Amino acid sequence: MAQKPSIPKGTRDFNPEQVAKRHYIINTIKGHFERFGFQPIETPSFENSDNLMGKYGEEGDRLIFKILNSGDYLSKVDDALYASKDSTKITSNISEKALRYDLTVPFARYVVQHQNDIEFPFKRYQIQPVWRADRPQKGRFREFYQCDADVVGSASLFQEVEFIQLYDAVFTDLKLEGVTIKINNRKILSGIAEVIGASDKLIDFTVALDKLDKIGEEKVKEEMLSKGISQSGIEKLQPLFSLTGDFASQIESLKEILDASEEGKKGIEELEFINNAISELALQTATLQLDVTLARGLNYYTGAIFEVAAPENVKMGSIGGGGRYDDLTGIFGMKDVSGVGISFGLDRIYLVLEELHLFPETISKTVEVLFINFGDAEALFCLKAIKTLRGKGINAELYPDAAKMKKQMNHANKRQIPFVVLVGDKEMQGNSFTLKNMETGEQETLSLEALIARVQ
Amino acid sequence: MAQKPSIPKGTRDFNPEQVAKRHYIINTIKGHFERFGFQPIETPSFENSDNLMGKYGEEGDRLIFKILNSGDYLSKVDDALYASKDSTKITSNISEKALRYDLTVPFARYVVQHQNDIEFPFKRYQIQPVWRADRPQKGRFREFYQCDADVVGSASLFQEVEFIQLYDAVFTDLKLEGVTIKINNRKILSGIAEVIGASDKLIDFTVALDKLDKIGEEKVKEEMLSKGISQSGIEKLQPLFSLTGDFASQIESLKEILDASEEGKKGIEELEFINNAISELALQTATLQLDVTLARGLNYYTGAIFEVAAPENVKMGSIGGGGRYDDLTGIFGMKDVSGVGISFGLDRIYLVLEELHLFPETISKTVEVLFINFGDAEALFCLKAIKTLRGKGINAELYPDAAKMKKQMNHANKRQIPFVVLVGDKEMQGNSFTLKNMETGEQETLSLEALIARVQ
Repeated sequence: MAQKPSIPKGTRDFNPEQVAKRHYIINTIKGHFERFGFQPIETPSFENSDNLMGKYGEEGDRLIFKILNSGDYLSKVDDALYASKDSTKITSNISEKALRYDLTVPFARYVVQHQNDIEFPFKRYQIQPVWRADRPQKGRFREFYQCDADVVGSASLFQEVEFIQLYDAVFTDLKLEGVTIKINNRKILSGIAEVIGASDKLIDFTVALDKLDKIGEEKVKEEMLSKGISQSGIEKLQPLFSLTGDFASQIESLKEILDASEEGKKGIEELEFINNAISELALQTATLQLDVTLARGLNYYTGAIFEVAAPENVKMGSIGGGGRYDDLTGIFGMKDVSGVGISFGLDRIYLVLEELHLFPETISKTVEVLFINFGDAEALFCLKAIKTLRGKGINAELYPDAAKMKKQMNHANKRQIPFVVLVGDKEMQGNSFTLKNMETGEQETLSLEALIARVQ
Repeated sequence: MAQKPSIPKGTRDFNPEQVAKRHYIINTIKGHFERFGFQPIETPSFENSDNLMGKYGEEGDRLIFKILNSGDYLSKVDDALYASKDSTKITSNISEKALRYDLTVPFARYVVQHQNDIEFPFKRYQIQPVWRADRPQKGRFREFYQCDADVVGSASLFQEVEFIQLYDAVFTDLKLEGVTIKINNRKILSGIAEVIGASDKLIDFTVALDKLDKIGEEKVKEEMLSKGISQSGIEKLQPLFSLTGDFASQIESLKEILDASEEGKKGIEELEFINNAISELALQTATLQLDVTLARGLNYYTGAIFEVAAPENVKMGSIGGGGRYDDLTGIFGMKDVSGVGISFGLDRIYLVLEELHLFPETISKTVEVLFINFGDAEALFCLKAIKTLRGKGINAELYPDAAKMKKQMNHANKRQIPFVVLVGDKEMQGNSFTLKNMETGEQETLSLEALIARVQ
């Protein structure tokens, strides 16, 4: 085989440094999930196709990776159907399982399947890979991790308050200061659509509004007109385009606009509750910002909508998002279970921390001490010391072969191992160890106890 | 949907307690992998099928889960081939990717693909799920984790010594005392086959020998005879059937048997080196045992072979295994790279720890304090205290709704939360907290500082 082997496009190998960095983020998130009372669950990588298909729209169905049945799978395809050579129709006959597309549908399935064993409200977190047959591009992969926390079984707005604090806690801990937690409420969007007489055009309306930042007020209005929203309706929107000031003053403007909509007023009330609590509790490094143009996952969320933006000096899409959905488990026949949840975008957070040099320097230095190998007798002497070091929690190893000294020292350098220990005849006789600091070049001969103290 | 949704056979959902227990094992293994100088890598869940097919034998090929190509995949199948309706032949035309079957082949692929960036000897560990379309049965799943550590690029026998110590360290840390680390050497088996004139029947010979424990000496001899091994050859085996005593005395018997085989003597030499080093270094709770009937993965390993047996009072297959393979990366065209590695059987270790009640009791108590919710004002007061607790590393949460007191207390009980905090008017006025110990029923009113001290 002359050519080097490769991996499928859109997938990645992670080297030790990358794994260490990814787990630094994951462990930080996980720590705060648990601090906030969330409990971990894990679900299988593949689900019965029936559980996934039709849950993410037509586009989603196409992007789900299907697993071929085992054995002589074609023998089970009806001859007439087979003759059609119709990939779409034949798929469900030769594939019964599919890789999970997100963690939300498997979670809903889990809740319904195990409802009798679950104590509600149920606060779960889940950090596992998902797969999408999307066109790979910068920052978009076919296999990637989702880090989700959700609560089901409680409509309390304190959950939203908790999730905002959770975002703040995680990003503060990651030293990523200055993130903006944008919040909106589906009821506000519905209310506005109602007020301007476009309740039947809610999607068109929000899609256009969502572009305000990018294309500006005039173009947004043009798009709305072209979608059939009336001139008089758009005029009523005017205060929306000039929403400024802090959370409280934006709320005041919204109250004017939405005075005629019960649903809109409910949305305002919810936002006020959340903002008041957050003001009382105070965030550490993040800012909560009302953004009425925020509309993610509209046909899914029913209350609060969240999206987290990286600090202003970094160009990056959202690094987290979530919201409330009043009927999470309805797709599996369990009605009226309200849920609210958030997600952290691991890959994008990684890129942001990398760009801002926020990963701790020591993160990938896994081995602290390398013992040089001068021969079998010396090596065995070293292994005894290494055993003691490891017992003290120090990561240590022996160079496995009695290779040339230079080669062994180079190995330590390339792996950025901070300390090297040299043991020859003299050391063995004196039951001592020569410790070399690879950064300063300093060398000293020490007892094992002193060596341990120096390295720790 | 009347019926509850389900998951594919052979797969599992893990609830919070199970996840906590699994991660307890994984984190223990991981900690020692790093203590011994291994570095983590991760590879994609699916590989190009070419990288996997043909690497695990015919049976293996059948058990690999194949992923269906996206889009109109049937249109790319040649009409004549399609007409054959031959599942085996058509598979490679409609499926280019497959779920990984183990971590060893992906690791070999990784080493070859990234050889220019790797500093050898390369000590890597990898803890990820693998998938096999095996018939599910007790303890055998279609999705399960492997926990592997391997070194490539060094033929030093100190690696074998290190791996034995690593097994001992992990099982000691898991409080699983009394495991037996069985060791053999492929060269010993080859040597014996050579000595009895059955080098061409090595597989038949070892398959029969492997059954000694189960079917006894006479039946093993019968099987060997039936496979064409000569009567005189079998007579030469006699000392093998009565190998007793400790490692050193078994070695002495083997020396007699294998006197005529160079390869056999090499195997003995390797075993002696390893055993001498282990005697010097001393294991903590495990025992190293020579087992010449041990033959796992014969067409794969070339030197040492390991298998770990649970303590004698537990009925369970091997809970770990491994060995040396002199040509790991040869399948991807990179020659002469010696590797040696071991694996931990997560699912079986889990069952053993469960049976022996060795999981720490506190493992799944994720929340330490639940604050009872008496209304919005009280809840907000509590959230401020909760924020402080979390800052001190205490897992704490607020019951989200102002439900009946009894319901909230029941929730704490069912989730085995050890402390509950009650805050009413009196507490708010006095800036104090009533802490209830859910085990003893004791209740005391405390300042926040005193509460933190009590809970920590």
